[in-house]
Amino acid sequence: MDRPGVIALLTDFGTADYFVGAVKGVILAINPGARIIDITHDIPPQDIEAGAFTLLAARDAFAAGTVFLAVVDPGVGSKRRPIIVETGDQVFVGPDNGLFSYLYESGPAKTFHVTNESFNRRPVSPTFHGRDIFGPIAAHLSLGTETSIFGDEVADEVRLPPLTPTKFKEHVWKGRIIHVDRFGNCITNISRSTLSARMEKRAKLTIKGRSITAFRKYFADGDAREKLFAVWGSAGFLEIASRNRSAAQKLKVKRGDSVRLEINN
Amino acid sequence: MDRPGVIALLTDFGTADYFVGAVKGVILAINPGARIIDITHDIPPQDIEAGAFTLLAARDAFAAGTVFLAVVDPGVGSKRRPIIVETGDQVFVGPDNGLFSYLYESGPAKTFHVTNESFNRRPVSPTFHGRDIFGPIAAHLSLGTETSIFGDEVADEVRLPPLTPTKFKEHVWKGRIIHVDRFGNCITNISRSTLSARMEKRAKLTIKGRSITAFRKYFADGDAREKLFAVWGSAGFLEIASRNRSAAQKLKVKRGDSVRLEINN
Amino acid sequence: MDRPGVIALLTDFGTADYFVGAVKGVILAINPGARIIDITHDIPPQDIEAGAFTLLAARDAFAAGTVFLAVVDPGVGSKRRPIIVETGDQVFVGPDNGLFSYLYESGPAKTFHVTNESFNRRPVSPTFHGRDIFGPIAAHLSLGTETSIFGDEVADEVRLPPLTPTKFKEHVWKGRIIHVDRFGNCITNISRSTLSARMEKRAKLTIKGRSITAFRKYFADGDAREKLFAVWGSAGFLEIASRNRSAAQKLKVKRGDSVRLEINN
Repeated sequence: MDRPGVIALLTDFGTADYFVGAVKGVILAINPGARIIDITHDIPPQDIEAGAFTLLAARDAFAAGTVFLAVVDPGVGSKRRPIIVETGDQVFVGPDNGLFSYLYESGPAKTFHVTNESFNRRPVSPTFHGRDIFGPIAAHLSLGTETSIFGDEVADEVRLPPLTPTKFKEHVWKGRIIHVDRFGNCITNISRSTLSARMEKRAKLTIKGRSITAFRKYFADGDAREKLFAVWGSAGFLEIASRNRSAAQKLKVKRGDSVRLEINN
Repeated sequence: MDRPGVIALLTDFGTADYFVGAVKGVILAINPGARIIDITHDIPPQDIEAGAFTLLAARDAFAAGTVFLAVVDPGVGSKRRPIIVETGDQVFVGPDNGLFSYLYESGPAKTFHVTNESFNRRPVSPTFHGRDIFGPIAAHLSLGTETSIFGDEVADEVRLPPLTPTKFKEHVWKGRIIHVDRFGNCITNISRSTLSARMEKRAKLTIKGRSITAFRKYFADGDAREKLFAVWGSAGFLEIASRNRSAAQKLKVKRGDSVRLEINN
Repeated sequence: MDRPGVIALLTDFGTADYFVGAVKGVILAINPGARIIDITHDIPPQDIEAGAFTLLAARDAFAAGTVFLAVVDPGVGSKRRPIIVETGDQVFVGPDNGLFSYLYESGPAKTFHVTNESFNRRPVSPTFHGRDIFGPIAAHLSLGTETSIFGDEVADEVRLPPLTPTKFKEHVWKGRIIHVDRFGNCITNISRSTLSARMEKRAKLTIKGRSITAFRKYFADGDAREKLFAVWGSAGFLEIASRNRSAAQKLKVKRGDSVRLEINN
């Protein structure tokens, strides 16, 4: 895999501490030509599922050969495995705790358990593997080091529950809100594989006791200001939105809340 | 126009979602040598006027040939036009909704309506033109692509109300607070073109019923700790400040509040 | 000193204003090849001690020759001196107000008072030396300009109180919380020079009336979920933590609060 030297970071480190800067310092010390891009460092602390979604949503925008360094790692210092995941034409490094789950759902992947400790920064802090283990691995991957150098392939990676609605009965699915964005749009786990364009006209979403049947093309589409509507979002999932205000606030919705999808005859 | 490959970003995307990372991924995929700089992504959601001010305040620090990608875009997906603005020796890309207004006030500008869709990322999400339309345009501009390749020049760009105080009567102007910064300094729309150095000694500002006649050179100038004072800020506008505390909190001022300027004889 | 062109930024500017973008624009205009890394811009406004700690904690991760631009500067525009500090194999630029104190404690250092104004951006705003004075200095340092070009060496730099616990009586020290991180871990000023591994078993920490004697290797170590424990943190200081929740919230601790260390026989 050709690697152009782009490293994309996703963590729950926040931006007020020295953590992110330290990881970047370590990377540049190993690969001075790396181009480091922040996806986000504001994943809620230790929220693996939120990290998994954001990683999935961002990755398609990046070129082949991009190295993703993803660290949401409540088990840092414990026996949980450091892994490298190769999928599509990109490579991901981080803890084996489910963070890469939604990538596995997107296509074939190879997972490598990192056992080669020769790339580690010394000494390794038991509380900051982002700086001392994962950062150096990402930097070496960005230089073109072969994945297999770091350890052997494994097949028992940790996975979160799948990112798809559950079929409840004929024409009825139980989905959930997987993300609420800055604008208050509520992203569901419903994709085109569950709800085709043909079925849209007969679809009804129910969330927090409210029914939604209007589908719009974009946020400023249509006239009514207050009405809730559904829109296909930029990550490929159906979103519940409200023009010029936060649907999440209006509905008092948070991530994890369930949404029912029904197709009427 | 020679373009050194610097792309400066200003959006209301926040930094907690995948939006900013996705825009950067797309840019680097097109121009791997681009140097991407964040101005800010914390423009209040959909606040075009705040974006317009921050863009104006930042631009002078950047070199000739810098490409600015500015996206505060409540009308994303609608018929509002994507535009490129050439002014001074820099180039700006974003939606035609007033975001570039204050640049037009600063000097001669050419505006191009982007109609060439061949640079778009496919498919174009109706809710994320930053990633699928504006990002690619900025990347191609940073590679030196001529502005005229993207579309024809237009003369009917959208503009916000002017960034200058209104003359109320002889020696009296009605201005407004155009920004409150992190330190609580209240930036007015009064510049040297309204209030010359010669007139300062006779100037009185009135805001929220409080009169301010003290002018200081810098924040730690003078002795009194609590007194409000005026200071010429780093963006070229008169600011209302309070030593070691937030003037905005002290005065309960927010952006848009009016300020009266009177020159006494 | 060889300088690879990396400039690491630490400020209290926040990320919502145009300040950080402007500093970066100025740097790139002088050194288009600079690789600019953010440590953080969220140092609490004007909190020099917080800036000094974060700078200390981050610096070791950066390569030799890195230029650090640190601006937490309540005295901007006043007579406080702009300085350059050379220590280890790195170089630091910012105001002489104590921000570099903890670096001085870490090893021999040379301090230069910047009096050469020929590198300044014109005109110099009395309220934004980050953009008009410190940014240009950092950019020129990153290009390899000798430190001595900027001004003469001085020996009377401003220093904060030392970053070490006070010996209260035999076997008892009075320390303090020097930082609370995003996860609520409370970083003390106790390092291995005060508390050796050999002494740990007999150590008792007291904070807010609570006693802590448990030492863990990492955050997920051990079983009890609620108990407070001590852990050696990634910056080399003893931290007080609580598994899967914020120790700072649990203890109602804030930076500056005192912690007592006692070694029992």
